Amino acid sequence: MGHLVVLKNKPYIRSFAAAVGKKEGEGPLGKCFDKVFSDSLMGQTSFEKAESYLQQTALELACYKGKTNVKDIDVLLAGDLLNQCIASSFATRQASIPFIGVYGACSTMALSLSLAAQLVDSGAAQTAAAVTSSHFCSAERQYRFPLDYGCQRPPTSQWTVTGSGAVILCTTKERAYIDKFLIGKIVDLGVTDANNMGAAMAPAAADTIHRYFKQSNTGPADYDAIFTGDLGQAGSELLYSLLGNQGIDIRAVHKDCGLMIFNRAAQDVHAGASGCGCSASVLAGHILPEMLKGKYNNILFCATGALLSPTSSMQGESIPGIAHIVNIKKEN
Amino acid sequence: MGHLVVLKNKPYIRSFAAAVGKKEGEGPLGKCFDKVFSDSLMGQTSFEKAESYLQQTALELACYKGKTNVKDIDVLLAGDLLNQCIASSFATRQASIPFIGVYGACSTMALSLSLAAQLVDSGAAQTAAAVTSSHFCSAERQYRFPLDYGCQRPPTSQWTVTGSGAVILCTTKERAYIDKFLIGKIVDLGVTDANNMGAAMAPAAADTIHRYFKQSNTGPADYDAIFTGDLGQAGSELLYSLLGNQGIDIRAVHKDCGLMIFNRAAQDVHAGASGCGCSASVLAGHILPEMLKGKYNNILFCATGALLSPTSSMQGESIPGIAHIVNIKKEN
Repeated sequence: MGHLVVLKNKPYIRSFAAAVGKKEGEGPLGKCFDKVFSDSLMGQTSFEKAESYLQQTALELACYKGKTNVKDIDVLLAGDLLNQCIASSFATRQASIPFIGVYGACSTMALSLSLAAQLVDSGAAQTAAAVTSSHFCSAERQYRFPLDYGCQRPPTSQWTVTGSGAVILCTTKERAYIDKFLIGKIVDLGVTDANNMGAAMAPAAADTIHRYFKQSNTGPADYDAIFTGDLGQAGSELLYSLLGNQGIDIRAVHKDCGLMIFNRAAQDVHAGASGCGCSASVLAGHILPEMLKGKYNNILFCATGALLSPTSSMQGESIPGIAHIVNIKKEN
Repeated sequence: MGHLVVLKNKPYIRSFAAAVGKKEGEGPLGKCFDKVFSDSLMGQTSFEKAESYLQQTALELACYKGKTNVKDIDVLLAGDLLNQCIASSFATRQASIPFIGVYGACSTMALSLSLAAQLVDSGAAQTAAAVTSSHFCSAERQYRFPLDYGCQRPPTSQWTVTGSGAVILCTTKERAYIDKFLIGKIVDLGVTDANNMGAAMAPAAADTIHRYFKQSNTGPADYDAIFTGDLGQAGSELLYSLLGNQGIDIRAVHKDCGLMIFNRAAQDVHAGASGCGCSASVLAGHILPEMLKGKYNNILFCATGALLSPTSSMQGESIPGIAHIVNIKKEN
């Protein structure tokens, strides 16, 4: 897997769904999401429980759309940003299905989707689900400051998406499938500003994209679109610069989920969006539906993660970044 | 994977190593470990960095023993107990190899080993490493109280192991291999006492062991030993009771890593040991070496995890448990 993994049996995408918060519902992709909650607590008693409920909702809607009983999912791969990944484990508690917890910060959707594809492709599972989430309110108070503090945010900061995306893979033929994936390496160029995640993750995205093109013997022109996870404005520009040094120009086909989900000018999100739920909800709410409509036939989904914690930042550590790529194709 | 995964190509165990702290070195297995550090900081400036260093040490020693260059590992699967799994990501940062972060609390070694075996078995990786760690000092201050506070610990509490275990799997023939694995479901019977992890995890262990026997059509007598992760004294007794209700008696072959690593009477660890590093260091330091010596030919390694966080406990939530089983066999 230093090498690209080319799947043999086309793990198919049976269904997918996205559940998001109010602000995401008011953004440019608002109409795409399967469920938009009107308040941050979603009927729960804490933001952490609300985040679990987001995951449950996304998975249940994906199951409903795929005419799949939750109990018939052979394995669920899930992750989130909360300490000890509690959004995922508490969301899965009732389902009583085999559970694999994964952690890749905001890259988690690409990681869980890769592993799910691998398990279905190899026959270890007939049906596998990949789910991730984030919640602005649970993330802010865990990573930064209590919301009530009203802290000023610098221009490079990104807004954590309140949302969850779920994708169900299966062995029976559907209209799209996972064709390849490449697991990322940790890249750390020494960025220490926890308010500039885009800069911390861009080098990892550049490394994985560069390796992917090299190993797959393809280039940007071979894809209808290349979606990065949540580099935001600052991170995207840095990615162009880093790839440019390698003679690669992805600008004609590049989109960043962190720049798609909000209207930056109107919604006050500074450099864009972020969070495990950002790329996951854009994938399940926008990218995959557009593929099925015929807009895209062959795309790269490259979610990026910043593997820091408040503890590592307080101890003066720089921010390790990671990015994984999943190649999704539409069936002919 | 609701079903047992029976591997086809014998993912072989090339090498393994364990690195532990002083207290673990003074325990009954002290002489088994590849490296025993004499102080808790291990030359680092924080307990968190010391935990990363434990992981690096275990992986480097496993590579050395397996005559493998770290750079030749196709993928590393690692996890720990720290917020955002920073022990693993910072340990892996220098290695520059593809990295999959997994989270299953103290069950993580069985989970990472299962996924590593799956990746090697399917040909997605030629060489995969599974590594996990825990550190008493980083865990205490994150989960419970600052060490300086000198908090009293109740009799059901367990002592987090300072240690790391690493196992390297490969496709070329060696003397032992992973034959099967079963991914666990989350089981939560409503235990809310964060000082009684054994009770919270035992129902999950019982569920996974029961399902494993049923699906593999085997029973306790078919195995030379069944190692649970870190149920401790309270959890082990509860496990016997729960399995007894299903007509299963594992007592003749059962050992709990949490009861093996310390001398409970002399080392003041109350109900036993715990932590991601407990089952990992016992596996790499004791179980696998004993297999190669011929003591065991066919064992079950069932690591157990409590999927709580301080936040979920403070919010009054009960503790979801999980357990995964790996069946390891000696080559004839």
